Amino acid sequence: MTIHRIEPSVYYYTFGPHEPAVRIHSGDTVIAETRDALGYDTKRDPMPEDMKQPAEDTSLRESNPVVGPVYVEEAKEGDLLAVHIRRIRLNRDFAISKQGAHFGSLSGEWPGHMLLYNDPIPTIWTEWKIDLDRNMGLLELPNSRLKHVEIPLHPFLGSIGVAPRFGRIETTLTPGEYGGNMDCVDTGEGTTLYLPVWVDGGYLSFGDVHAAQGDGELNGTALEVTAEVTLDIEVLKGRTAQWPRIESDTHIMVAGSTRPLMNCVRLAQIELLNWLVDEYGFQREEAWQLNAQVGTMRIGNVVDPCYTVVAKCPKRYLP
Amino acid sequence: MTIHRIEPSVYYYTFGPHEPAVRIHSGDTVIAETRDALGYDTKRDPMPEDMKQPAEDTSLRESNPVVGPVYVEEAKEGDLLAVHIRRIRLNRDFAISKQGAHFGSLSGEWPGHMLLYNDPIPTIWTEWKIDLDRNMGLLELPNSRLKHVEIPLHPFLGSIGVAPRFGRIETTLTPGEYGGNMDCVDTGEGTTLYLPVWVDGGYLSFGDVHAAQGDGELNGTALEVTAEVTLDIEVLKGRTAQWPRIESDTHIMVAGSTRPLMNCVRLAQIELLNWLVDEYGFQREEAWQLNAQVGTMRIGNVVDPCYTVVAKCPKRYLP
Amino acid sequence: MTIHRIEPSVYYYTFGPHEPAVRIHSGDTVIAETRDALGYDTKRDPMPEDMKQPAEDTSLRESNPVVGPVYVEEAKEGDLLAVHIRRIRLNRDFAISKQGAHFGSLSGEWPGHMLLYNDPIPTIWTEWKIDLDRNMGLLELPNSRLKHVEIPLHPFLGSIGVAPRFGRIETTLTPGEYGGNMDCVDTGEGTTLYLPVWVDGGYLSFGDVHAAQGDGELNGTALEVTAEVTLDIEVLKGRTAQWPRIESDTHIMVAGSTRPLMNCVRLAQIELLNWLVDEYGFQREEAWQLNAQVGTMRIGNVVDPCYTVVAKCPKRYLP
Amino acid sequence: MTIHRIEPSVYYYTFGPHEPAVRIHSGDTVIAETRDALGYDTKRDPMPEDMKQPAEDTSLRESNPVVGPVYVEEAKEGDLLAVHIRRIRLNRDFAISKQGAHFGSLSGEWPGHMLLYNDPIPTIWTEWKIDLDRNMGLLELPNSRLKHVEIPLHPFLGSIGVAPRFGRIETTLTPGEYGGNMDCVDTGEGTTLYLPVWVDGGYLSFGDVHAAQGDGELNGTALEVTAEVTLDIEVLKGRTAQWPRIESDTHIMVAGSTRPLMNCVRLAQIELLNWLVDEYGFQREEAWQLNAQVGTMRIGNVVDPCYTVVAKCPKRYLP
Repeated sequence: MTIHRIEPSVYYYTFGPHEPAVRIHSGDTVIAETRDALGYDTKRDPMPEDMKQPAEDTSLRESNPVVGPVYVEEAKEGDLLAVHIRRIRLNRDFAISKQGAHFGSLSGEWPGHMLLYNDPIPTIWTEWKIDLDRNMGLLELPNSRLKHVEIPLHPFLGSIGVAPRFGRIETTLTPGEYGGNMDCVDTGEGTTLYLPVWVDGGYLSFGDVHAAQGDGELNGTALEVTAEVTLDIEVLKGRTAQWPRIESDTHIMVAGSTRPLMNCVRLAQIELLNWLVDEYGFQREEAWQLNAQVGTMRIGNVVDPCYTVVAKCPKRYLP
Repeated sequence: MTIHRIEPSVYYYTFGPHEPAVRIHSGDTVIAETRDALGYDTKRDPMPEDMKQPAEDTSLRESNPVVGPVYVEEAKEGDLLAVHIRRIRLNRDFAISKQGAHFGSLSGEWPGHMLLYNDPIPTIWTEWKIDLDRNMGLLELPNSRLKHVEIPLHPFLGSIGVAPRFGRIETTLTPGEYGGNMDCVDTGEGTTLYLPVWVDGGYLSFGDVHAAQGDGELNGTALEVTAEVTLDIEVLKGRTAQWPRIESDTHIMVAGSTRPLMNCVRLAQIELLNWLVDEYGFQREEAWQLNAQVGTMRIGNVVDPCYTVVAKCPKRYLP
Repeated sequence: MTIHRIEPSVYYYTFGPHEPAVRIHSGDTVIAETRDALGYDTKRDPMPEDMKQPAEDTSLRESNPVVGPVYVEEAKEGDLLAVHIRRIRLNRDFAISKQGAHFGSLSGEWPGHMLLYNDPIPTIWTEWKIDLDRNMGLLELPNSRLKHVEIPLHPFLGSIGVAPRFGRIETTLTPGEYGGNMDCVDTGEGTTLYLPVWVDGGYLSFGDVHAAQGDGELNGTALEVTAEVTLDIEVLKGRTAQWPRIESDTHIMVAGSTRPLMNCVRLAQIELLNWLVDEYGFQREEAWQLNAQVGTMRIGNVVDPCYTVVAKCPKRYLP
Repeated sequence: MTIHRIEPSVYYYTFGPHEPAVRIHSGDTVIAETRDALGYDTKRDPMPEDMKQPAEDTSLRESNPVVGPVYVEEAKEGDLLAVHIRRIRLNRDFAISKQGAHFGSLSGEWPGHMLLYNDPIPTIWTEWKIDLDRNMGLLELPNSRLKHVEIPLHPFLGSIGVAPRFGRIETTLTPGEYGGNMDCVDTGEGTTLYLPVWVDGGYLSFGDVHAAQGDGELNGTALEVTAEVTLDIEVLKGRTAQWPRIESDTHIMVAGSTRPLMNCVRLAQIELLNWLVDEYGFQREEAWQLNAQVGTMRIGNVVDPCYTVVAKCPKRYLP
């Protein structure tokens, strides 16, 4: 059980079977400092051009640089990669957020494309103060009756995923069956993420830590921060999944990502149903009846090229 | 402040400006016993044919009989009707649930119509035991490893609404800008529902109490029960809304209902944004930034002809 | 076979079992002059307030006044009403069109509600000249390189429908299983529309003639005109349908209306498949294979509360 | 103006900047024989394993092998690649089609994933006879009243695209802003496809010829055939596009691909509007009004991971 500290020389803007940053064994731990979604580090220095991968220049490359990939020697196609998120330590005193043209749930636009006749919405940058000692975020509201507001932080990994199946390479802007930019608050400290391995080695990458975020990531950004992230990584043989599964102290969960939003519901619920039947001994219709009454859902994001819904079943009702 | 006890002689299967069951004044209280979504009463007796309205026979008429309408003398088009849900007292020891052909989030079908090449799913009826003293529901799971499960109840009104605007008449199977079959757990005891008045008198109707339900009402039904419901009804002059607003001790909320699901998100969030700006003194972009980080959402139903999403903002962050 | 000329004293803005304008027998013919979608008559006179039904005032009532209802004595629930569109004679020399705030496929808005953060698009009224002799429409384009354009007309009924099932009353702004505001170019002269009868008598209403329109009615309006419409109406016993069916010289067609757009495809295709199997003797999978290769689709409208897709199968491939 | 005949040693199942099969100059012509969507050649021989790229084994790799990529020396990011489809010569006497489990518009499933509670639909293989002399396809219908049917062929390229922007690599199962598996009948002989160049060299690949297909490719397959394809390829400097544009003798067209289907409409129509404004001298609102009345749409596919809608404007109304 080795601890690997990654000092990234490059950051990727895609999930795929890239040149690994580190090769580890099942059971090892990885520690790395992540940059924020916009590429800034703890000192507000932007990402140097020569650290951006892939090398070709495009505007979309500017979002969600991820650390990795981590190549796990024992991970074979069809296995399950258990990633225990042991720690997410915030390490700077500000967060960046914004509402942006051509992005966000209410702008009616597709990333980089206009979907509507209207003009794009104005881009507005916002900075939150982060109080690391008190684990609070402070927002100034100069033009509102309430002049400022303070909220508790709940840091989580906005983007974490493996190489997609079938040799695809996906931008870190979108989530999928390989994880990716799920932007769901459930991938926080203390939870375990189970990712299906599609390509031998797995190629786990991660970044885009959010200090806090509402459901849906409505305006397209959260409290974008840097952090030191500690992950315990284990390969599970003989277990399988079609979509990312998440386990916390209280819930088992599945993150389904696609468009339209209703199909995220369907993908996540069918996978959750399969989980209940395959690993918890439920008869199919009985699981369906139970979960229809006790299950909840979170809308992770409604802004990425694929949306994400997390279907959740309380563990208190499981054997 | 009069208390009106309604003893229904007919039940409606549509929301509209029907012959009122009672005429009240703003500030009055209404008490009524509701039948369950399938028409059964506390003694498991089915709805007599001559109590079903409208009189024409169709299969869809079998869902969600509502008590009312309540005509509120002071309610004029453009007002807001505040309905404080003071009490929902369950009054029988069983609940009915089912998965049904041509219905439910994963059956891929439109109410009454096939949307797919596949055969419809089998209809399976389920009965839950209700422990009224302990406020718990018990489900037998004879074919699963876990043989039974017990869950806490959280009763709420599945269907409550006024007459829709523009003289439309809507089946109690669907929600809309007038409320209706929202199937959202947030309309429980102690909350206040604000409904826009579209037709003078308002014509409030209600029923379809659920003892418990998961997000989305995935299989198309909840724990369908009867109850005695107590509502305090008040007309608010000079306030307005485009969609049903809900207020609890902890949150202000908006229920947006339409298809596709993503547009429910949009309708609810835009209305919530308008609420924050108009009544809480936020500048628009600042409200948008704040709510994007602290707002949550619940998926009320994904089975009715229109789906429902509830957008929620915590009151602790409001002035 | 009586010919009934309707001289409307009121126009309805809803489809429903209203007081009939005329009672006819199966086989009779109905002739009436329709007003345009905005209520104007041939002389550009607006609709008098006392001719608008229902009497309650709302802004949405301003769209698609329809003539009728026509009560057909022999029409019983479960029958099919065959409406042969014998003639649509345009009778004025101008058409009105517009792009409107809160409406249209690219405005990102729900009728009457904002769906987006953006401002609504500007409302722009446009007038086309109609050359009745040459059956052409002329549009001035003062600000474009091309200064004007002339297009051939293909008049059709934008709105035609019966009373919806289950005592619902629907605004003439939306289509459904009862027909309604389908805005599909296929309901033109010489075609036959088969509408399922949901309520005894049928209650057929019609209006909203378009002199021409592109697929989707993209900006929310077509070339809105008045016309004299001649319909031959017949009750078909022993035949049934779930959605409006249309037959022309060359195609059998089904109009499926709902949201999202993909479900219009599904509703229309499943109904078309049922038609091929039930009335043309195809085995189900063989019909499905054939129609997948020769069937076409038109997107009727993508602006109404429900969208419409018309699935079409060429009659040349039918027995 | 050189003619390059490609004799493929490998076929790709992804669009991306792969090792080029040939390097050409703007103005050159490329000729190649394509295999069918399932990998079969003219003699019904399956694709040898060592010709499949990428080398990793997965089930999805089995669809739509493409020839190429063609590296065009003058093609730089931001240019437009004009691909004139000079000839599609069918070269075998049968076509393969099927309805498949987990695929197709009415199966309610996501490629490779269940979206529904139901069982998947049965997989049924169908073979069409191709009469090359008469350009007709013949289908036996043994279980239907009509025992066989003959349809005229209209061959087109189901899949043709360049490398996607931002270093992504996309499966040939899906379309996008780079073209890809659009499955739209408009990419037939005599038309010109304009593809935006996202990566220097363009990396054009093509295959998946369909001898005929209905709108939507409803069951997930068309008349899958082999063909010899002749393309004239030219780089257009100083012209740009966001989505594939197509030009025939009669129409200018845009293919928009995404989910949900309504957003395909929006993407295609906005791009078509931009085209009318930028290259044909229309003022924006005037183009919008005109196209709303004369424009048509085709639904290319509703089965791939992204759907495709083709927005069409008749050239007769353009200056």
